[in-house]
Amino acid sequence: MKEYVIGIDIGGTFTKFGFVDREGNSVAESSSPTDTYDNIDDYLANLVKELKEAEKKLSSPYKIIGIGIGAPNGNYHSGSIEHAPNLKWKGVVPLAKLFGKYYDVPVRLTNDANAAALGEKVYGGAKEMNDFIMITLGTGLGSGIVVNGDLVYGHDGFAGELGHTTVLEGGRQCACGKRGCLETYVSAPGIKRTVFELLADDSTGSELVKYSFEDFDAKYIDEPAKRNDPVAVKAFEITGQILGRKLAESVAHTSPKAIFIFGGLAKSGDLLFKPTKKYFEESLMGIFKNKIDILPSQLMGKSAAVLGSASLIWNELK
Amino acid sequence: MKEYVIGIDIGGTFTKFGFVDREGNSVAESSSPTDTYDNIDDYLANLVKELKEAEKKLSSPYKIIGIGIGAPNGNYHSGSIEHAPNLKWKGVVPLAKLFGKYYDVPVRLTNDANAAALGEKVYGGAKEMNDFIMITLGTGLGSGIVVNGDLVYGHDGFAGELGHTTVLEGGRQCACGKRGCLETYVSAPGIKRTVFELLADDSTGSELVKYSFEDFDAKYIDEPAKRNDPVAVKAFEITGQILGRKLAESVAHTSPKAIFIFGGLAKSGDLLFKPTKKYFEESLMGIFKNKIDILPSQLMGKSAAVLGSASLIWNELK
Repeated sequence: MKEYVIGIDIGGTFTKFGFVDREGNSVAESSSPTDTYDNIDDYLANLVKELKEAEKKLSSPYKIIGIGIGAPNGNYHSGSIEHAPNLKWKGVVPLAKLFGKYYDVPVRLTNDANAAALGEKVYGGAKEMNDFIMITLGTGLGSGIVVNGDLVYGHDGFAGELGHTTVLEGGRQCACGKRGCLETYVSAPGIKRTVFELLADDSTGSELVKYSFEDFDAKYIDEPAKRNDPVAVKAFEITGQILGRKLAESVAHTSPKAIFIFGGLAKSGDLLFKPTKKYFEESLMGIFKNKIDILPSQLMGKSAAVLGSASLIWNELK
Repeated sequence: MKEYVIGIDIGGTFTKFGFVDREGNSVAESSSPTDTYDNIDDYLANLVKELKEAEKKLSSPYKIIGIGIGAPNGNYHSGSIEHAPNLKWKGVVPLAKLFGKYYDVPVRLTNDANAAALGEKVYGGAKEMNDFIMITLGTGLGSGIVVNGDLVYGHDGFAGELGHTTVLEGGRQCACGKRGCLETYVSAPGIKRTVFELLADDSTGSELVKYSFEDFDAKYIDEPAKRNDPVAVKAFEITGQILGRKLAESVAHTSPKAIFIFGGLAKSGDLLFKPTKKYFEESLMGIFKNKIDILPSQLMGKSAAVLGSASLIWNELK
């Protein structure tokens, strides 16, 4: 009988899901709104309705063997979403337990970056690695750390918040309440903030002057950078410098075999990877130099968040 | 039959050892020179002679069940000392293997801070903890990170080098070759450098003006600080600020239940702990605030390095 894990990726606006087999094929994928439900019970009832609908597309016979969920502030230890700033359900939401009303299978929950790290291990470039770090670059900077073959959850389930290590005391205001956090510099909005800082300082001329702050999207700098636009090139240089130096600090903690970069910004390829690697190597202690790879995630282009969430269950069965 | 593990702590000048039982009692302790031997074979032959001599003090019947070694740049994976800057034996020294000529028991090797972390877990304040960090403050800043109940060795055996994360780009020259490393600020020599920087800047008067740089010892600031000497107080404030902020970054990596501080500087008690905790809490992300302890090591005053080294073996048997 074909076995599937339901992989669910809960974002602030949409919830995506798919039925993932042992080999990492995700079928009957669909999505359902997140932010139209003020009440978690209503949200869940609708999500389950959508899941049952999608299930009809699976060829019989099949069996659902578990549910893996990636969610903001998802706590693996408790199976709860705890105080997620970008969700409407406040406080502690015992999501794994609530799912028990509908499905009699194991339900595991963690945050999206941890799920992505597991996905890289189960289905991506980290299959043979016991020690690596996953960095997800999107509207924020998420991270999942794998040590001795296992995800690092920490004593409270919230380990791996590299996006909120400090780049500059008193620096840019972060949504977390602190200032100078890494994700205010290295993320899609972060590189946009850098571009506008550079434009304010620039006197050499840049084609990026035509955008308003609200209309500007981080992906608009790729083409100008390839044409050697000074502001676009410098924005990547600065972003890579900050990221490379910070990753060197993470190496001093857990000494990973590789660091994978996932998400929109990673698609910029060498524009981002080249300066990142340069400053990374420069900042490493001697014993770590020239032996740690910075690589694009091999989940790019796939339903990475859904695969990652499903791998919470598949990884346990390995 | 009484079982012992030989715990060996290899320092640049001396090698200390003891016979450690399951309960953490270290008996027949002694020491032997390290730096008088240019050749590892001569060093080892003499060390084994001293061990056999000390063994005579043990009451029969007894059994040696293993050897645990803490050494600079000790690599757990390979059992070798690799390129230790403060030892005369250059390159890679396969110490665990060399011991095999003399003792037919398991031999484990790691660096001194990792050994201290395991000691805290087996015999000290971390008995019930699966996630914690050990910081050793002496002539350098060492660290051992425990995650999911196990030491973090990293892919190459060298994880846990928090002393070489960067406080300030282009800052103080570190013995590792980099600049601005944490241990150039937070360590016995680090706080001394801070005192002399403050004296150069001070106009309020300090009793510390009477020392030459070469004669000054970090422990000389405790009493003046208690008498509110402005330079001594400020040196602790700055040291605690730098340490507290850096420890908050480590929390963002592995979310430990507690951070233990060990070594000479930790003996300064509240003079160091108070500012460290203040800046630590201030720098933590919201989800980590008010739940992570910074504590003095419970191995203080004991033969911590010997106990820690021995716990490499005892921990495996737990």
